[in-house]
Amino acid sequence: MMLGAAAALFPALTARADTERKLGYAIVGLGGYADVILPRFAECRASRLTALVSGSPEKARRYAARYGVPEKNLYDYRSFDAIKDNPDIDIVYVILPNGLHHEFTLRAAAAGKHVMCEKPMANTAAEAQEMVAACRAAGRKLMIGYRSRFEATNREAIRIVRAGEIGAARVVAAEHGFDIRPNQWRLDRALAGGGSMMDIGIYSLQAARYLTGEEPVLVSAVDTTDRTDPRFAQVEDTVLFQLRFPSGATANCVSAYSSHHNRYRVTGSKGWIEAEPATAYEGNRLRLNQDWRTRDHPAPPTALNQFSAQLDHLSECVMSGDEPIVSGEEGLRDMRIIEAIYTSAREGRAVALSVA
Amino acid sequence: MMLGAAAALFPALTARADTERKLGYAIVGLGGYADVILPRFAECRASRLTALVSGSPEKARRYAARYGVPEKNLYDYRSFDAIKDNPDIDIVYVILPNGLHHEFTLRAAAAGKHVMCEKPMANTAAEAQEMVAACRAAGRKLMIGYRSRFEATNREAIRIVRAGEIGAARVVAAEHGFDIRPNQWRLDRALAGGGSMMDIGIYSLQAARYLTGEEPVLVSAVDTTDRTDPRFAQVEDTVLFQLRFPSGATANCVSAYSSHHNRYRVTGSKGWIEAEPATAYEGNRLRLNQDWRTRDHPAPPTALNQFSAQLDHLSECVMSGDEPIVSGEEGLRDMRIIEAIYTSAREGRAVALSVA
Repeated sequence: MMLGAAAALFPALTARADTERKLGYAIVGLGGYADVILPRFAECRASRLTALVSGSPEKARRYAARYGVPEKNLYDYRSFDAIKDNPDIDIVYVILPNGLHHEFTLRAAAAGKHVMCEKPMANTAAEAQEMVAACRAAGRKLMIGYRSRFEATNREAIRIVRAGEIGAARVVAAEHGFDIRPNQWRLDRALAGGGSMMDIGIYSLQAARYLTGEEPVLVSAVDTTDRTDPRFAQVEDTVLFQLRFPSGATANCVSAYSSHHNRYRVTGSKGWIEAEPATAYEGNRLRLNQDWRTRDHPAPPTALNQFSAQLDHLSECVMSGDEPIVSGEEGLRDMRIIEAIYTSAREGRAVALSVA
Repeated sequence: MMLGAAAALFPALTARADTERKLGYAIVGLGGYADVILPRFAECRASRLTALVSGSPEKARRYAARYGVPEKNLYDYRSFDAIKDNPDIDIVYVILPNGLHHEFTLRAAAAGKHVMCEKPMANTAAEAQEMVAACRAAGRKLMIGYRSRFEATNREAIRIVRAGEIGAARVVAAEHGFDIRPNQWRLDRALAGGGSMMDIGIYSLQAARYLTGEEPVLVSAVDTTDRTDPRFAQVEDTVLFQLRFPSGATANCVSAYSSHHNRYRVTGSKGWIEAEPATAYEGNRLRLNQDWRTRDHPAPPTALNQFSAQLDHLSECVMSGDEPIVSGEEGLRDMRIIEAIYTSAREGRAVALSVA
């Protein structure tokens, strides 16, 4: 691998001096994942929390008090567009239900702000394409919240595969799933865009792509949802999907809303690397098989946890002018593949993809 | 599970008194797998080695000397049919290349002998059907050499799944493969009937079926063979295949001739059971996840190793009149599913299967 490629793959997650400027983030949506993200600004070197956007004024004030956000920087979904006049806000991080990502990304770009948007970036590839175009037209960065790309275990797994330490990658087995509780927005098609694929299955898809470094040319999928389960009246439960890559490498993936999975293994011509858990918030673990022996393989630590590193990456890209390693275009690729997965499962046929 | 069903699933692998009669086996084909089987008669309680069939008289004599087979019980492929007059032979065990299974099973049945046939039982489902019919017409047993059904680890995994100890089975991930050496009969379509699916992939298929206890109603497959690899001029390398079962359980499987895999995991609604290696000759290991904790799970030992137990099972069925748990019909089911897998991969579409 060329050094340039390695640098693009692994942006330096080094500590910035605290005296340098930190870019200001507005968090949009104070749901469960905001509770994961908000405490992580404390460790950021290039990012700080400056604003909150919520439909509940009471909740916004409570979070503002906890995280030191001034009253003037609290917005609701109607007043949101006024952020354009607030110089404390450089970046808007959209942590709303999937079905609202498109609207708020477009409004943030229209307000002249850079955008971090949670994955999946939209309900459809068409929406995703509009988001990419809107941010480009506004001259603003768009990054998708693929936190695993900033996490030590996943970075080490990528390095091992790409460096050929298990030979040529042949088969990626990637499984992600959990047993979803009823009565939540993730089971509402308008808000979620889909079921397990649009939530947890995207981790299997991302892993297959970032581990191999390739784009699939063929997708085949089977949907095995039990539609008599009231949770799955609108969205899919389990999808098995398979990807064929140009090198001949393949991926055999699971996306599930009724069983727990969080692992991947890349089997190469000379061994394998496995992560389980693979994409947890913490505690991910690697096992490496080489020369017919399997051993635990601790990943070298990164300077920052995955959440803070993700936040800082966009801040640094804004300051340097570089493209994020998980740009809007990257999110759009996932959306196109997910749509092909849905098409394959619905029509019972393999779907060829053109490499964009 | 009813006791009757449990008894059928787990035939008693108990020791028989050595004073009882042992049925005589003729081994047809002295290749590598015969070297695995022949030493195992020493531990059998109901079976003994009485005859050898080989194309090489020198090899037959050498093996006869090693295993105590009398000169009069040595045959070649032309003289084979004379076994009908040899009362030392009760059962013929066909360990020839796949493409010869059909011919020698029919000739053995015509000679009035019971048949153990290695897997896959034939090159095609049509041949397999003829083998089942021929043995039935001759009033002789036909059993397929699915050794894993007699192996402690696999029996324990089946028990755990069927007993509901991991909840309802949701996803079986089963992977089998190895990096095949060039220049051998397994790469010759006429002799092998196909590639990895007809050799090692059948273990993934069998596992999916015996772990769930269900028959697939839908098959989808992707063939990713690199046809520029000289090994794969005639037969396939890697096939990813997916099965949907009536209960909603699914299987995501790998069959490979260019990377090493030997494992399965059944993920249920309450945990998972994993075997790796899963179907090795020895040293198979289980890990069990329950209540969010994973631990090694040693399988209770069986009275006999898998090879001797398999040999004795057919002898006992011959004596009792019972059907083997892995009958010709069972082998035929695999053949029909493998043909559906090939059709799916070739035509790029999911293939529905009717439950026979």
